[in-house]
Amino acid sequence: MTLFATADSVTRGRLHAIVERGYEEDRSVDAKVAEYLHISETFEHAGEFDLIHSHYDFMALAFSRLVKTPVLTTIHGFSSPQVLPAYLKYRDGNFVSISDSDRHPDLNYLATVYNGIDLSLYPLVEKQGRDLVFLGRIHPDKGVHLAIETARLSRRRLVIAGIVQDADYFRREIEPQIDGDRVRYVGPVGIDGKNELFSQADALLHLNTIPERFGLVLAEANAAGVPVIAMDLGSCREVIADGRTGFLVHDVQEAAMAVDRTKEINRRECRDHVQRRFSIDAMIDGYEKVYQEIFAASGKSIP
Amino acid sequence: MTLFATADSVTRGRLHAIVERGYEEDRSVDAKVAEYLHISETFEHAGEFDLIHSHYDFMALAFSRLVKTPVLTTIHGFSSPQVLPAYLKYRDGNFVSISDSDRHPDLNYLATVYNGIDLSLYPLVEKQGRDLVFLGRIHPDKGVHLAIETARLSRRRLVIAGIVQDADYFRREIEPQIDGDRVRYVGPVGIDGKNELFSQADALLHLNTIPERFGLVLAEANAAGVPVIAMDLGSCREVIADGRTGFLVHDVQEAAMAVDRTKEINRRECRDHVQRRFSIDAMIDGYEKVYQEIFAASGKSIP
Repeated sequence: MTLFATADSVTRGRLHAIVERGYEEDRSVDAKVAEYLHISETFEHAGEFDLIHSHYDFMALAFSRLVKTPVLTTIHGFSSPQVLPAYLKYRDGNFVSISDSDRHPDLNYLATVYNGIDLSLYPLVEKQGRDLVFLGRIHPDKGVHLAIETARLSRRRLVIAGIVQDADYFRREIEPQIDGDRVRYVGPVGIDGKNELFSQADALLHLNTIPERFGLVLAEANAAGVPVIAMDLGSCREVIADGRTGFLVHDVQEAAMAVDRTKEINRRECRDHVQRRFSIDAMIDGYEKVYQEIFAASGKSIP
Repeated sequence: MTLFATADSVTRGRLHAIVERGYEEDRSVDAKVAEYLHISETFEHAGEFDLIHSHYDFMALAFSRLVKTPVLTTIHGFSSPQVLPAYLKYRDGNFVSISDSDRHPDLNYLATVYNGIDLSLYPLVEKQGRDLVFLGRIHPDKGVHLAIETARLSRRRLVIAGIVQDADYFRREIEPQIDGDRVRYVGPVGIDGKNELFSQADALLHLNTIPERFGLVLAEANAAGVPVIAMDLGSCREVIADGRTGFLVHDVQEAAMAVDRTKEINRRECRDHVQRRFSIDAMIDGYEKVYQEIFAASGKSIP
């Protein structure tokens, strides 16, 4: 396995780098130049590989018909409808979606492979906590205001963690509700901070207002045994087993009712569910199946 | 000959378009998507062609090693030092410069081929006019202030034409000198406007303060028989034959002395010089030689 990435990347495979650092971190580099150098380098070495697995949006597709090596593209979301022409030209290619809900109907998907998380980072918390937790960017899309409303309706404490992405929204709708007791804001947190929150949590509230491609934090909470109360939008119903690892809801009333039912959730089952579906092993299994399908289609023996 | 360009392009060759309009003219199009679709389309058809002649900056180079068809790149200037890594990776490719002065020492140049102008657009004006003319963007790089100073020193009228690119510069250094008589500003002009100016011109002043890649307007003025007084910087000495089609100078004093010598210039010789070196025919001849050189190197017969 060879990883084509910036020189500061960490991998157990062989690293092939032509660009030193991410262009967001190195202002001396022209992003477009770095991008072209990076992709062309990869495809100039195509003959050395059985498969090129691209996570590089639509750009690698433009090179895909110029080499014999099959190209697999994982689409980590469509950044805007304007990128669709680039995908549609190569619709017969090999695509993987990161959730069933984040698919375009006209592309040749071989599978959905969910992003995997490292379960060893999130130990199981067997004891049910009392607090409700919001974890994510402070942005209207993330429904932080709905989490606050749910906590109020269910008379629970809420802890909010995450970066402020929309400062207006924070100032207008969130900050006035923070009282350091019923509603606390602890800023952005790392893995330790997340586990600290999970250890006190009765449930994670994820009341998004727009469909999400894939909510990694839902799987992280479940990994720690914490039930998730999630808006039934986008990929949430793919991540949460309704009634078994949390509850899918449609408004704050339903969310508040779900809060009263969290004792029905078996915390160990939450973790087992993540292990089966959203672990790194599950992701690897998913991709290995896709690779084998591509090799079979090209008449190649499986390396 | 097949031209890969936007669908609104005008060509006598075959037009192959995958993008409707220039992305500056069509805000519904993502520039990056259009760029990738355009280049990949070209290279996916590489097998149909004996040669791909790219005017598309460094981007086409990234595809050049993935096809057997030789690629020739005309470098219409380096937009910044940051683009050099993309050129240097492909330094052994086939490059044409647009002037001898606009070259990077490490690239494999096959020739300089000057941009050609259509001489039929600029009829010869045999009779020497009285005015001095500046034609170009109003920007400090273009030395409009030096043209004004030269006119003042040589007690001539100056007509300035062109778009205001640097509004501060215009307001601060140019506008206060415009009196509608000794110094006039007529705004941007098209081909008719240029010919109108050439018909009254004693000389064109081109007193750039930084090196230029290639001054098309110098060739246009010479085509009309108008001598050019140009700063001896960048490509000017490639365009102007000093003492025969104009004068190369180093400051406004020399420029003013040159104004007094314009009668030494044979206007018909100016035009003949442009015909030989900067006409469309000269450009075609130049490129045909380069094409033949590439075919010879690849052992191909000349199509």
